[in-house]
Amino acid sequence: MRTLHHYWLCPFSRKVRIVLAEKKLAFEMVVERAWEQSPDLLALNPACDVPVLVEPNGAVLADSIAITEFLDECYAEPPLIGQNLVIRAEVRRLVGWFDVKFNRDVTVTLVGEKLFKRQMGIPGGPDSKLIRVGYEAIPEHLDYIGWLTERRKWLAGDVFSLADITAAAHLSCVDYIGDVPWDDFPAAKDWYARIKSRPSFRPLLTDHLPGMPPPKHYADLDF
Amino acid sequence: MRTLHHYWLCPFSRKVRIVLAEKKLAFEMVVERAWEQSPDLLALNPACDVPVLVEPNGAVLADSIAITEFLDECYAEPPLIGQNLVIRAEVRRLVGWFDVKFNRDVTVTLVGEKLFKRQMGIPGGPDSKLIRVGYEAIPEHLDYIGWLTERRKWLAGDVFSLADITAAAHLSCVDYIGDVPWDDFPAAKDWYARIKSRPSFRPLLTDHLPGMPPPKHYADLDF
Repeated sequence: MRTLHHYWLCPFSRKVRIVLAEKKLAFEMVVERAWEQSPDLLALNPACDVPVLVEPNGAVLADSIAITEFLDECYAEPPLIGQNLVIRAEVRRLVGWFDVKFNRDVTVTLVGEKLFKRQMGIPGGPDSKLIRVGYEAIPEHLDYIGWLTERRKWLAGDVFSLADITAAAHLSCVDYIGDVPWDDFPAAKDWYARIKSRPSFRPLLTDHLPGMPPPKHYADLDF
Repeated sequence: MRTLHHYWLCPFSRKVRIVLAEKKLAFEMVVERAWEQSPDLLALNPACDVPVLVEPNGAVLADSIAITEFLDECYAEPPLIGQNLVIRAEVRRLVGWFDVKFNRDVTVTLVGEKLFKRQMGIPGGPDSKLIRVGYEAIPEHLDYIGWLTERRKWLAGDVFSLADITAAAHLSCVDYIGDVPWDDFPAAKDWYARIKSRPSFRPLLTDHLPGMPPPKHYADLDF
């Protein structure tokens, strides 16, 4: 069986879950608390991080970019990184936008401070200065999603792609803590509503961290 | 003509310079001080960051992963991301290791604090706490390079790849400020000496930031 080592609100793990589901590949999940540096996880991935995918033939893959590129090369349908050179570069540019820029500016400052710190048992509570940085950064990203989707059907063009998956994976984590001001960004909200209704995305909406339930609108398709 | 918008000690730009040279693609360079947020750079790349590659046909590519994947798809010789699925996943895993983990732990803390802060005119000087984090992190990475190259000819296997290029691009920036303890890590040093002697890498060894010359060993092939 294919096994994904993941953590619930890790956007990089969520990205892989969505890709596997889009490609209709069955998998089971093992939750890893990567910060505990278990020898088992370290043996699978010297970076001691999730996601790690173990394929049915035993191949071990780490790093969300390496995993998603592998899955798109190995299981061609549906193609998620685009079918010509220019579109592929655009998909990957936007994957980078969300995995690097959004992650640094928003995911780490909001989800990291409010949720991961507590999960990891780091004392001292969230850093309010970092949280302010996150709140200040998020409108630029929602604006950009709106700008793109007013000109294109999906983020990278007319076809749903890894760019949409990556952006939605990050935003879904921020949405879990109720920090996405959807009502101020109707175009981004419309795009996210389309993602939420995809069967591949539904399982993420049932994730519940013990003691940290999501806000009511999190799983609501008509939010 | 092909144009690379770059900055001298940006490891992501250096990675693209090496890939272009390995593939024997001619290009000219435009230096960008991305932090000044020039409208010209913003028009090329909404993330307002380098590298940005403008191809001879006018195609504009941003993000070092998107650019290097594009170049490897478009100009197949020599292949730099590997020729089978498993090797490709391994190359990309290691690219992620250096672009994310090494960058966060070492490049940003040492080159960012000691060099970029000054270039960007950020007052207050380097943060000694961050510099200590960088010094503490670097041995793990040099150890890992040594561990890999004692088992394989190059980082990802028997063939020189984007994994070597990415690792060397980051390390070359740290080496420019003299912060790589090569003598304590002979296997990593031997690997880096092999990279330094490649024609594709030589131009990087002649980079000189005004007022911030590199240490003598930086350009020395027999360091």
